[in-house]
Amino acid sequence: MRVRDIGERGLIEKIFGIIDKCDKAVLPLGDDAVGYLIDNGCVLVVNVDMLVWSTDVPPGMSFRQVGRKIVTMCVSDVAVKGAKPLGILLSIGIPKDFPVKDVEEIVRGVNEGSREYDTYLLGGDTNECNEVILDGIAFGIVDRDYLVTRSGANPGDILAITGYFGYTAAGLKILLENMSVPTDIRKKFLETVYNPRAKVKEAIALAKSRTLTSSIDSSDGLAWSLYELGKSSGVGFIVENLPIPEEVKKFAEIHDLDPYDLALYGGEEFELVVTVKPATWEKAVEAVKKVGGTLIKMGKVTKDKKIVLVDKDGVERKIEPRGYEHFIDN
Amino acid sequence: MRVRDIGERGLIEKIFGIIDKCDKAVLPLGDDAVGYLIDNGCVLVVNVDMLVWSTDVPPGMSFRQVGRKIVTMCVSDVAVKGAKPLGILLSIGIPKDFPVKDVEEIVRGVNEGSREYDTYLLGGDTNECNEVILDGIAFGIVDRDYLVTRSGANPGDILAITGYFGYTAAGLKILLENMSVPTDIRKKFLETVYNPRAKVKEAIALAKSRTLTSSIDSSDGLAWSLYELGKSSGVGFIVENLPIPEEVKKFAEIHDLDPYDLALYGGEEFELVVTVKPATWEKAVEAVKKVGGTLIKMGKVTKDKKIVLVDKDGVERKIEPRGYEHFIDN
Repeated sequence: MRVRDIGERGLIEKIFGIIDKCDKAVLPLGDDAVGYLIDNGCVLVVNVDMLVWSTDVPPGMSFRQVGRKIVTMCVSDVAVKGAKPLGILLSIGIPKDFPVKDVEEIVRGVNEGSREYDTYLLGGDTNECNEVILDGIAFGIVDRDYLVTRSGANPGDILAITGYFGYTAAGLKILLENMSVPTDIRKKFLETVYNPRAKVKEAIALAKSRTLTSSIDSSDGLAWSLYELGKSSGVGFIVENLPIPEEVKKFAEIHDLDPYDLALYGGEEFELVVTVKPATWEKAVEAVKKVGGTLIKMGKVTKDKKIVLVDKDGVERKIEPRGYEHFIDN
Repeated sequence: MRVRDIGERGLIEKIFGIIDKCDKAVLPLGDDAVGYLIDNGCVLVVNVDMLVWSTDVPPGMSFRQVGRKIVTMCVSDVAVKGAKPLGILLSIGIPKDFPVKDVEEIVRGVNEGSREYDTYLLGGDTNECNEVILDGIAFGIVDRDYLVTRSGANPGDILAITGYFGYTAAGLKILLENMSVPTDIRKKFLETVYNPRAKVKEAIALAKSRTLTSSIDSSDGLAWSLYELGKSSGVGFIVENLPIPEEVKKFAEIHDLDPYDLALYGGEEFELVVTVKPATWEKAVEAVKKVGGTLIKMGKVTKDKKIVLVDKDGVERKIEPRGYEHFIDN
C-alpha cells in the first residue's frame, strides 16, 4: 500500500494510531497546532507547516512571496488557537546549485512576513535537498482559559467567518488552468494567491473577547474546515449566508463554474471559521472591528450532524467533505 | 553565486545579515537552538533539524532508526542549552508512491525516540515531496538562571566531554567508503552511526549543577564545536587529552588513517563539549555520574585564541576549523 492509495487523511489516521499520548497535550492530535500545558497555567502553542516547491508553489510567485507565505501558513494556526505568535523558525532545504540571491529573497520574505505579524524570525536550519523545501515553525503562548479549540461548538451557536471566500480558488484556476479573466479581476485574484493574509489580529481579539466556542482556519478549504469543526464538536451546520464576492460570481459565470464550488472547496485561504455564543455576538463583532477586521454571520450550529447550505430560496444543498489533500489527485 | 560557492557557513552568514533582531531572543543567531524569554522568567528553547534522505541517511539505516535519529538530533540541541526537552513535532515530506508501512516505521522511530528521551511526539505536518524529508522540532523550557550558552567560557576553565570520539567517523568510512574492519569492531562502529544517543540527561544534570560556563553538542564534529565555542566566548583551547577508543586507533592503523582526524573532524556524534569552572569540577563529575554518564577532562580554556592539541610528548598540533558542512564536498 502506497500513500497515494490512502491519501493524506488516511495516512494521518495511521500515524495517530502509533503515537503515545502525552498528559500535557491539551489539543488533540490533528488539531491546527500542538498545545502543551506549561507550569504557569499557560499553554505553549506550536505549529509546523511545510511548503514544498514542486507541489505547493503556484506559477509566478516570487521567492519573497513564498517566504512570506510560509509565515502566513504557520502563524495562522497558532493564532486561531488564541495564542499570539511570538517567534518563527525556518528550516530550509535547497539544492547545491541554488542561487544565493534567491535564498536571500526567501529569507527576506520570511523576515518581513514575521514583522508583518508582529513577530520575529529567530533561527532555524539550512540543508541540502534535491528541491526547495521551506518548513516554518511558529510558537505562541496563551493563558489556558483563553485557548480556543475545535471542540466547543454547541447547537444554537452562530457560525461566522472573517472574510469572503472564492478569490483564491479562482486565482489558482487562472494560474494552473490558464483561465482568462478581465485584467482588474485577475490582479485581485492573484493578489490573494501570492500574498495571502492570516487573520492573526482578528483571532487574538476574538480569543480575548471570550465569545468563541470553537475555531479553525480555512487553509484546507471552507467545506473541509466545517467538517473538521463539526467532527471535533459533534455538531452540524446550516450555512445560510455564504459570502461570495461579485468578482468571483462573474468569473464563475464566464467559465461556467459553480461559484459555491469555488467558495467551498478551495484552500490556501486563511480566513477564520468560528462559532460564537449567541449572547456575545455583538461583543465578538466589536472585537474584530476594533482591530480593523470584519466578522460575517454565515449560519448556525445544529444538533443534527449534517452540514448543509440553504440558499435564499430555501433550497438545501449538501456540502461535501472535501478540500485540498496531499498525495491524491485533487 | 550559488550556495555551493560559499558553503553552508557562508550562506548562514548572509542569512544573519537579513534578519531583524528580537529583544526577547536570549541566544544569538547561530546558537544550537532558539532561546526566547517568556514572561515568567523562563526561556523557551526551540530547535529544528532537517534530515534529507539523499544527503543525510547512511546506507543500511532502517526507517525506524532514521525516525529515532531525527529526535536525537533535535533534543540534543535543546538539552545542551540546559532545557529538558518537553515535546517533539515532526514535519514529514514523502513521495506519493512511498509505502505506508515505511512511513509507519519512521513514525514509530520518532515516537520511540521521543519516549527514550522522556518526551513525546505531539504533532506535525505531512507533505508531498520528491524525496523523503524529516524535519524534527524539539522544545523545552529552562529557568533563565540555568540556561547554558556558548559564550561564557573563561580562560582557566576546564574543557570536558561526555564520551569518546571517532566511532562515528570510522563507522561512516566503513559504510560510505567500503572500508573493511574486524566484525566485532564493525558492529560497534555501525551502532554509533545507526543509533546515536544524545546526552540529554547529562546535559540537564550539568545545567542544574551550575558548574558550566559554556556548552555545545558535537554534531558538526569535535573540532568545529571547539571553534564555535571559542568564537562565541572569545577564547582558545588546549586539548591535552583526546580520548580515542582503542578500536578506532586499530581501525586507523589498518587503513593508514590518522586517528586524531577521525576524532576531530567527524560529525553526527552527539557528545557534549563543555567548559567547567575549575572549583566546581568534582561537582560536575558527580552530577553526570549520578545520571549514569561520564565527564572526561580534555583540556583547558586559554586566553590565547588558538585551538591546539598537545600530545603526551608535548608536541603541539593545530586543530583545523573544519567539520561537516552542507553544499560543499566534504
